[in-house]
Amino acid sequence: MDISQNDRAKIILSSRILSLKKNAIFFNSHDLDGLLFLKSGKLRFFLSHLEARELPLYYLNNMEVEFFEDFSDNSTSTVLDIAFIVEKNSEILLIPYSVLNLFRDKYSVMEKFLHNLTREKFSKSLLSLQNILLIPLKDRLLKFLYSLNKTEISLTHEEIAKNIGSSREVISRNLKVLEKENFLKVNRKKIIILDRSDIL
Amino acid sequence: MDISQNDRAKIILSSRILSLKKNAIFFNSHDLDGLLFLKSGKLRFFLSHLEARELPLYYLNNMEVEFFEDFSDNSTSTVLDIAFIVEKNSEILLIPYSVLNLFRDKYSVMEKFLHNLTREKFSKSLLSLQNILLIPLKDRLLKFLYSLNKTEISLTHEEIAKNIGSSREVISRNLKVLEKENFLKVNRKKIIILDRSDIL
Repeated sequence: MDISQNDRAKIILSSRILSLKKNAIFFNSHDLDGLLFLKSGKLRFFLSHLEARELPLYYLNNMEVEFFEDFSDNSTSTVLDIAFIVEKNSEILLIPYSVLNLFRDKYSVMEKFLHNLTREKFSKSLLSLQNILLIPLKDRLLKFLYSLNKTEISLTHEEIAKNIGSSREVISRNLKVLEKENFLKVNRKKIIILDRSDIL
Repeated sequence: MDISQNDRAKIILSSRILSLKKNAIFFNSHDLDGLLFLKSGKLRFFLSHLEARELPLYYLNNMEVEFFEDFSDNSTSTVLDIAFIVEKNSEILLIPYSVLNLFRDKYSVMEKFLHNLTREKFSKSLLSLQNILLIPLKDRLLKFLYSLNKTEISLTHEEIAKNIGSSREVISRNLKVLEKENFLKVNRKKIIILDRSDIL
């Protein structure tokens, strides 16, 4: 059930290499739909919603693959819009959705591969939203700051908010609480993580 | 690329008809994994979480199909547990996951069908969690009560809470607010929806 040499060539010839600039945002139903292989850089996927805050879903890191699909043909999801923002300058290899579609009926191995990507995306997204709903914001904030693995963090409160699905005001308030509890110090420009090993 | 008569027979012979009693709960990694066709009744799917509240995902209604899969083999989702509760006595036809798995590599048409079910489940679930995160509880509560299409509702506050992913206390408080705003009346046993056409 292998993919024939002829079809393989067609797929390879259809693929494009694209450079994405930092901070660019791509929405679904865009011409970036398809199988997306990240050669370098970092993409952050989120649920976007008109006039509302962004809900973080997951990251795509170096050498990872993503099946970025348009959901707008699905009747249940007219308000569901998965988007991504380019966190670092990135280079991707894209096999367009339209090309994949030509071969999905023919090769179950390809369909199974795409199915697994959808399934993985599904569980990562649910997990992220579940965390937002169940884990107190202060804990998520601390976990996020620790995950950066730096003692000095120069992200704005706004940027942190986007990453954990909150607002600037709420982040600022919670940073103050964490400062009082001696987890960190907040400067005008930086957040300094304090060494807890001295205290704990 | 049709399914051969032989394989078709194998699949049909593997299917089981099961009666599910009202209020029974089924978790993932249970022997109900597989392709599930609801002949009659109603199932409510939700995310369950140890010691935490349930997060509602979607319903399975009469004649609908669901691919109920075990996610526990997936490294990212050890804490992600999709479960369902039987809302009405139900009868289902189940094709076990183990049997489906035998044919997924062989028939792309089957893999594509399962993929579409996963995709649908994905968008319905995200939409539901997005609503919990973005739509104020009072609005969701009213929308849920209207969706029942009854003027007298005899659900407990606890039951309503489970349906929209909240707690009994929060529901009771919000019902009082809606009562003050003349949307409904709350009795000891019933909620009575008021006709807004007289007022609006």
